[in-house]
Amino acid sequence: MLPTPVSMDTTEFRKRGKEMVDYIADYFEQLDKRQVYPDVEPGYLRPLIPDSAPQEPESFEDVLKDVERIIMPGVTHWHSPYFFAYFPTASSFPALLADILSGGIGCIGFSWAASPACTELETVMLDWLGKMINLPEEFLAGKDGEGGGVIQGSASEATLVTLLAARTKTIRCVQSENPELTEADIMSKLVAYASDQAHSSVERAGLIGGVKIKNIPSDDKFTVRGSALKKVLHEDRAAGLIPFFFCATLGTTPCCSFDRLLELGPICNKENIWMHIDAAYAGSAFICPEFRHLLNGVEFADSFNFNPHKWLLVNFDCSAMWVKKRSDLTNAFKLDPLYLQHCHQESGLVTDYRHWQIPLGRRFRSLKMWFVFRMYGVKGLQEYIRKHVKLSHEFENLVLQDKRFEICAEVTLGLVCFRLKGSNELNEALLKSINDARKIHLVPCHLREKFVLRFAICSRTVESVHIQFAWKHISKLATDLLKAQDKQQQ
Amino acid sequence: MLPTPVSMDTTEFRKRGKEMVDYIADYFEQLDKRQVYPDVEPGYLRPLIPDSAPQEPESFEDVLKDVERIIMPGVTHWHSPYFFAYFPTASSFPALLADILSGGIGCIGFSWAASPACTELETVMLDWLGKMINLPEEFLAGKDGEGGGVIQGSASEATLVTLLAARTKTIRCVQSENPELTEADIMSKLVAYASDQAHSSVERAGLIGGVKIKNIPSDDKFTVRGSALKKVLHEDRAAGLIPFFFCATLGTTPCCSFDRLLELGPICNKENIWMHIDAAYAGSAFICPEFRHLLNGVEFADSFNFNPHKWLLVNFDCSAMWVKKRSDLTNAFKLDPLYLQHCHQESGLVTDYRHWQIPLGRRFRSLKMWFVFRMYGVKGLQEYIRKHVKLSHEFENLVLQDKRFEICAEVTLGLVCFRLKGSNELNEALLKSINDARKIHLVPCHLREKFVLRFAICSRTVESVHIQFAWKHISKLATDLLKAQDKQQQ
Repeated sequence: MLPTPVSMDTTEFRKRGKEMVDYIADYFEQLDKRQVYPDVEPGYLRPLIPDSAPQEPESFEDVLKDVERIIMPGVTHWHSPYFFAYFPTASSFPALLADILSGGIGCIGFSWAASPACTELETVMLDWLGKMINLPEEFLAGKDGEGGGVIQGSASEATLVTLLAARTKTIRCVQSENPELTEADIMSKLVAYASDQAHSSVERAGLIGGVKIKNIPSDDKFTVRGSALKKVLHEDRAAGLIPFFFCATLGTTPCCSFDRLLELGPICNKENIWMHIDAAYAGSAFICPEFRHLLNGVEFADSFNFNPHKWLLVNFDCSAMWVKKRSDLTNAFKLDPLYLQHCHQESGLVTDYRHWQIPLGRRFRSLKMWFVFRMYGVKGLQEYIRKHVKLSHEFENLVLQDKRFEICAEVTLGLVCFRLKGSNELNEALLKSINDARKIHLVPCHLREKFVLRFAICSRTVESVHIQFAWKHISKLATDLLKAQDKQQQ
Repeated sequence: MLPTPVSMDTTEFRKRGKEMVDYIADYFEQLDKRQVYPDVEPGYLRPLIPDSAPQEPESFEDVLKDVERIIMPGVTHWHSPYFFAYFPTASSFPALLADILSGGIGCIGFSWAASPACTELETVMLDWLGKMINLPEEFLAGKDGEGGGVIQGSASEATLVTLLAARTKTIRCVQSENPELTEADIMSKLVAYASDQAHSSVERAGLIGGVKIKNIPSDDKFTVRGSALKKVLHEDRAAGLIPFFFCATLGTTPCCSFDRLLELGPICNKENIWMHIDAAYAGSAFICPEFRHLLNGVEFADSFNFNPHKWLLVNFDCSAMWVKKRSDLTNAFKLDPLYLQHCHQESGLVTDYRHWQIPLGRRFRSLKMWFVFRMYGVKGLQEYIRKHVKLSHEFENLVLQDKRFEICAEVTLGLVCFRLKGSNELNEALLKSINDARKIHLVPCHLREKFVLRFAICSRTVESVHIQFAWKHISKLATDLLKAQDKQQQ
């Protein structure tokens, strides 16, 4: 007797699935009326639900009621048009539809044989996307290329995977020239580099990989120049270290600055250093010809990554990574137990993506790319990027017209870094009053010694009216703050 | 003018979302009529679709038509009742509903503030699940525990994360006692262990972490005994190595054998070795009191992991991991850039799960657990496990009644390892004829020198009738094969 698995059969699923689709549609229609950042305090949820799982099944109605009662009050609404924090995370209806399909098929595509469609669509979608941003042919899989793309879960994993591939490659290379050196000897001398503006995940990749990782000082535009890298390399070689990996950033997290690939790439190539490019946020913009120049120099790189799940309307997770030589990845990771082998794997025609990533299992994520690319078309996606960039410049102009404020970094894409002219304390107080008011949501960053507010264009549905509202609100809070400060000083 | 983003508004999403729900329901209703393993050859998909993404948007109808035309012919149907390969991957309607909701909310829960509900529901769900399998209290978060659980993407990541935490802990400990040793010195002496039957991801974790990893020989039941571990530890200590991590397996991938925790745990504790338990597949069974004894000894472990996304009806990805001391993880990984800080984080009340895992971003995956646990109830889940175990014994009995065959390892849960008495070539030929016929799908393993067929109970909808069919089919193919062989020998 199996009462429960039967209690939701396909008939019931049809009914409940449609109710859930309506719930999501309602959610999006009413999203601008929900408070963007929740009021709850840490620990709010535990008292609202039982201590342990129920013994007997409960109904879908009861669960859905609890979503509104327990979950929604604690949600930070990333897709609210009043959300300007972090960077965007993508959301679109075609991607949601594809994810329903992916969940239904529910295959695990760790090898070609485990679901050929899952692997093959991914390879072709990464080629489509590579062509959309005009990546050099070497990065594409094509029919018989040495390169190719893969979907990683996040840019952090892309950085880690490429750092590990570079580590293995370097160790083997050094050992072949110096057979007396042990792996541990070499590991202790390896050193990787990234901008002092790079994402914390780069430092973390070094930590995980057990290698030194050093910051390269960025210039006054928060950009790493070739001269800065050269200087550090020179010092480190002199000290007996082995430079092996440089992670360039296009679109840094604090202020969306761009490292100078055209200066850095030739240095890395000459010095036999793996150059990885992390364009997690900015990469999506390269589908527009007017922004593609920011990627110039990618031809010098060994690997490149950006996150369609940030700004290209493909829901999380979908981090696109390409390498010029796929054998660099598979050499670093390949382990082949019999239960994962299949008769086609040595044919040279198939890709077993488990050798390209940290986890073994993988969902059918390329369906999201396929649905989004087809149902928006390249032109639709370009319009979307352009709209966000236009809105960030609109906000930038509002800031520039107010003499109390300053812009802290060049506005290139959808991020505006700004602050009140004055102390860090003043700006911390401003940010606090903004987030306490709960009408919009922002996060800060440090640019050198300065505490700076980040205004990121995030939502798919954000329009000029929301930008105007946000600025009026910020401006009013600043006025209040400055008044209160004047009063205090009197 | 933005024609495309508008072309799928919420009204259209309601319509298409419901069509997609129906498509999935139809898929499940007809799944037993689809061929479980596809006929396609490597490279089949590329010629079926354009070389590059379309410039103009296409319609949902066209995309959905292509799903049937291009995708489905290349899908290995993991949820077909004729799929007996690998281990199960979970699929249930409550989990699918929760995933629609998770996609709709679309929050990224890397910190408490990034979406408090996402973090807090996860902590509580891991407590629920921990109680369901009667984990020692130390592993639960409770209101003020030092331990707690987290959802990882896969068991591979759980093994890697715990190995890295153990590595950092050991390095710090050794350095505090021997300040003259460098990190590189210590790294070169570290050694981790796992059964010779352990999953390949354990070896990979060692590779990634840059530490030695050694196999402990399993006994004739494919089980690691305390004596075997002791012997290797003794040798390695004598050679000046530093043992720091042992990964015990409950339910090995080849044959679902169980390492002897009650012997191994005390050794690890005494020798100051981090014991991690990988119960990826078997863990779900521990919700049944009659299987819980297999987990005895978990009280000696530092960390424990299993995959509800395998056998507990929670769709991929959902790998549940617990640690006794969460500070062991956060000490190993914590990096705190300003853009990820928030005012509550030092309160001691909140969990920032980004410090517990490799990626930064994370989806709202605990919704799946919540929906499944509530809509099945513990009893429903127990019945589900019991049904699978019953079916595996049914298959085992069919094999035992046929004198041509042998059972190769004890059948404890849902996996039967069997083979024709005879050569490996014979069994390879049998497997080939089974998979070539495309009526059912199996994968093999090696047990010592033997090539063995694995028959895993996988599908949510598999019943006795499918087991009987599978056995008749295998038996018939064996007869044909043996006849052909006899003929050849005459």
